[in-house]
Amino acid sequence: MRIDIITVLPELLSSPFEASILKRAIEKGLVEIHFHNLRDYSIGNYKQIDDYQFGGGAGMVMMIEPIDKCISKLKNEREYDEIIYMTPDGKTLNQGVSNEISLKKNIIILCGHYKGVDQRVRDLFITREISIGDYVLSGGELAAAVLCDSIIRLLPGVLNDETSALTDTFQDNLLAPPVYTRPSNYKGIEVPKILLSGDFPKIEKWREEKALERTTERRPDLLK
Amino acid sequence: MRIDIITVLPELLSSPFEASILKRAIEKGLVEIHFHNLRDYSIGNYKQIDDYQFGGGAGMVMMIEPIDKCISKLKNEREYDEIIYMTPDGKTLNQGVSNEISLKKNIIILCGHYKGVDQRVRDLFITREISIGDYVLSGGELAAAVLCDSIIRLLPGVLNDETSALTDTFQDNLLAPPVYTRPSNYKGIEVPKILLSGDFPKIEKWREEKALERTTERRPDLLK
Repeated sequence: MRIDIITVLPELLSSPFEASILKRAIEKGLVEIHFHNLRDYSIGNYKQIDDYQFGGGAGMVMMIEPIDKCISKLKNEREYDEIIYMTPDGKTLNQGVSNEISLKKNIIILCGHYKGVDQRVRDLFITREISIGDYVLSGGELAAAVLCDSIIRLLPGVLNDETSALTDTFQDNLLAPPVYTRPSNYKGIEVPKILLSGDFPKIEKWREEKALERTTERRPDLLK
Repeated sequence: MRIDIITVLPELLSSPFEASILKRAIEKGLVEIHFHNLRDYSIGNYKQIDDYQFGGGAGMVMMIEPIDKCISKLKNEREYDEIIYMTPDGKTLNQGVSNEISLKKNIIILCGHYKGVDQRVRDLFITREISIGDYVLSGGELAAAVLCDSIIRLLPGVLNDETSALTDTFQDNLLAPPVYTRPSNYKGIEVPKILLSGDFPKIEKWREEKALERTTERRPDLLK
């Protein structure tokens, strides 16, 4: 998989891709990440990429021309399955969307900033608008990193233990059951006896019950 | 505001706090961020912080003792308003929660990793469990960065133009209206005439209509 990220702040994005699972996935050649600094496609001597919004009001708007130049260059080089715009008014990301995008070959992610991009960018180039949740961030960069993390960990070979992703919260519309590790008694607080029993069918049943119980209590909406 | 972040991967978190608005907020002294590497509180010669889960199954579980040591040390030093655990089965973050947390003085954020923390950590220390959305990440670090970004930008003095945050998506349960900037005609595609009219009451009305229209179309759930 190849992911091209268009941003005004590539420096914000460096460390998440240089640590842990994402780093390993890149080193193993399972995913390629390319950052494109929008300022390299800016206009005039001032390296302009944003301007005041028509009609007045606070906040700058990202101009269409630099974005057009960057996306057009990439599209000339290869086919893209999706051109995704990260924006709080996009479709809310969920595990199903992440699963779906993880099957694509080449995608572009455009990070919004300031008041967002000129609407014509959205009308002309964007195939999918994604929000990572109902809150506003100072830019689309962290949202892009979150999207990348959620899809890259699903690529075959990325997680060491592939069965691990299958038992995650959301993969079966249930929250995960509680987990415990050593010591079995910590300052007088013990782990549930059943987990020490060695009776694996019973343990499995207990986990299913706890998962259902937790989901019913915390997220009844997932059960519908 | 002071935020203490407990993590096994502090290096993953560096760049988001060294760029843009978060960097400026830290430099201005509006927020203090302290990273705590859980390995500094690890057990034994192997610097152990995780172990297999009781009852079997894939994925490691973060042990209670290092987390207890780290949180207890911090709580001995000052009072905390919240000890937040980032986990996909927590309460879903939204702008209201971000607004609320932005009013706190001292908070601790614990980043989950692997299969999560020993349930006893959650029972004993955590005051609030937060998920940034219905998808699984390789760890709680990006989720913590997202939470921090969403609250820090709300602190007085952080945004240059304070009216800007007030017109964001979600602050009034409406998505933001479309925005446009120069040029008014780009390759034949023009911005809506009304935005060039200079008639500000009419522009305001148009924006309200567009915000309502977009919300009705994309997120009718926000209007309930």
